[in-house]
Amino acid sequence: MATMKTVVMRDNKVQVEKAPMPEPGSGQVLVRSRACGICGSDLHITRKAQEILAFYQQLGLVEGTTESLEISLGHEFSAEIVAFGPGTERSLPIGQRVTSIPFLPAEGGEVGVGTTPGVYGAYSEYFLLNEAWLLPVPEDLPDEAVAITEPMAIGLHSVNQGQPERDEVALVAGCGPIGLACISALHLRGVNNIIASDPQPDNRELASRYGATRTIDPREQDEMLLAAELAGGRRVVIFECVGIPTVIPDFILRAPEKSCIVFTGLHTGEVAFSPAHALVKQLNIKYAYYYEPQEFAACLQGLAGGDIPWRELVTGKVGIDGVPGAFEEMMKHNSHIKVIIEPWREGALESI
Amino acid sequence: MATMKTVVMRDNKVQVEKAPMPEPGSGQVLVRSRACGICGSDLHITRKAQEILAFYQQLGLVEGTTESLEISLGHEFSAEIVAFGPGTERSLPIGQRVTSIPFLPAEGGEVGVGTTPGVYGAYSEYFLLNEAWLLPVPEDLPDEAVAITEPMAIGLHSVNQGQPERDEVALVAGCGPIGLACISALHLRGVNNIIASDPQPDNRELASRYGATRTIDPREQDEMLLAAELAGGRRVVIFECVGIPTVIPDFILRAPEKSCIVFTGLHTGEVAFSPAHALVKQLNIKYAYYYEPQEFAACLQGLAGGDIPWRELVTGKVGIDGVPGAFEEMMKHNSHIKVIIEPWREGALESI
Repeated sequence: MATMKTVVMRDNKVQVEKAPMPEPGSGQVLVRSRACGICGSDLHITRKAQEILAFYQQLGLVEGTTESLEISLGHEFSAEIVAFGPGTERSLPIGQRVTSIPFLPAEGGEVGVGTTPGVYGAYSEYFLLNEAWLLPVPEDLPDEAVAITEPMAIGLHSVNQGQPERDEVALVAGCGPIGLACISALHLRGVNNIIASDPQPDNRELASRYGATRTIDPREQDEMLLAAELAGGRRVVIFECVGIPTVIPDFILRAPEKSCIVFTGLHTGEVAFSPAHALVKQLNIKYAYYYEPQEFAACLQGLAGGDIPWRELVTGKVGIDGVPGAFEEMMKHNSHIKVIIEPWREGALESI
Repeated sequence: MATMKTVVMRDNKVQVEKAPMPEPGSGQVLVRSRACGICGSDLHITRKAQEILAFYQQLGLVEGTTESLEISLGHEFSAEIVAFGPGTERSLPIGQRVTSIPFLPAEGGEVGVGTTPGVYGAYSEYFLLNEAWLLPVPEDLPDEAVAITEPMAIGLHSVNQGQPERDEVALVAGCGPIGLACISALHLRGVNNIIASDPQPDNRELASRYGATRTIDPREQDEMLLAAELAGGRRVVIFECVGIPTVIPDFILRAPEKSCIVFTGLHTGEVAFSPAHALVKQLNIKYAYYYEPQEFAACLQGLAGGDIPWRELVTGKVGIDGVPGAFEEMMKHNSHIKVIIEPWREGALESI
């Protein structure tokens, strides 16, 4: 039986393992992973494996009796077609570079590629995709740019949920990949005032490159107050891209009156907040999760068209055997924005 | 010095006290209270005086060093003009019946009539209003109907925040005065499916009279499931009118995917919830507080025009000296919907 390498997260540990080569089912395509981004949620799943397990059990994604969470990671990818399963249309050739929303059709809905137990993710050498959802990759777009499509789509979807008008004020809190994706989408939407808030000077610098009109260190200045001042009575739309659960009660407490907060981060623990503060300020709280397929496709086009300075985002590359070491490094305080895994080669994490 | 009777909430206790007759300041009008509704929030303030005090201290409404909360209650009223303060236009005659949004202009914003320490509420024999905000009461509209304007405006504002389309499904959880006000506003808006959920059969009966198209006992059937079934993929807009903080995490856990929850109740304690459930379902959470002046005026017109079966709502009347007893009774499990205080007379709570 043919085998391949995959990266498995099991009980807070990420390791490279041998696995049987996946076989494409009906409507499916076997692809070879060319590049896959390490997402903040991959790190979160690894750090909080038991919390995620309990949440997946609540959602019915895994059996209630399962004691250990095991996920083959990777959902931000560029890949190439290797083989077609039965019942496929085969309109794209073998070898064609493709990407896709990271889902597979399943009974009663969809399962996530790289997030659901039992489904191979794109950190693996090979994995499966749904033919109908494949998007051919524009010829000149490098694989690491293609892998940026997914976080960009998260940002675009968040912005589409918040729907800021041009003359309203957008505040993006946290300028990691998702925050930068929000800033990019806000910039392309034509929003006049885009405040980017991040304690790290490098991230603020990047935020300016992506279209922020003001950057601010939230340890030195009150970003909510600045947003309210700039808004002068118009609505403030806040995009929470910090990814730490304590920001939820803090933002609810500090958000300006009648503002909208869009939460993008998956916080699986319980969070205590003061609903009375949300009430008297008449806050509107929106939760944005993934994206629509057309938002994903629009981001791939945006990257191909040169609208998004994606090169600034990619701060490291690593081969498949270097992934456990890269995770160890990224679990600590570090200055990486986006690390790209190239599962077809060996090699430790290198900054670029 | 002239005196009057007022009803003061101090340290979880409501009592009738003598107070100096208020004197109208610049732009103000002295009015005599003809009828004032007992609001669920009046009971809440009384029950949770220390929690409200802490919250008011956070908002800067009272000094941080204040140890005891003291509020002259009453913000749902019909009144008549007794005297004008300096700088008033006096376009309405002495004796004219009026109502108003329960606010007075103050430095840096507004203070609430019947909710802010130091401001007389409409449980009092006399109190002050802002002349510019007075609405003359239509001649044939009884005082107890006028007192219903305020909770009706809360419902209308909540519905305007949730903005359900005709073909979307509205679920009103809790059919007290605010729930019924939401149902009425939804009905007048032309929403086709209005589900009313309440454990009490009498309240469900009233909900039908106000325009609910389906009523449901949430102890016997899952109201969220019914709403999702009726919606068939369209949006569900949930109006939380239960007024118990535990419904917040419960509704977030059980709300259908992509639904909107409008919270109307003032919950001053901390509440723990699971943001991940809100995230994966992409909930939109809106907090509705008070109303716009034009919403208040629209409700007064609606009551005068016979659009709202307000008589069904009034279940009791009480004189000023009977208020402490009425509060004691209403703090226990009881079947009252709206009790009207007539501060100009004596008398214990009588059901009607």
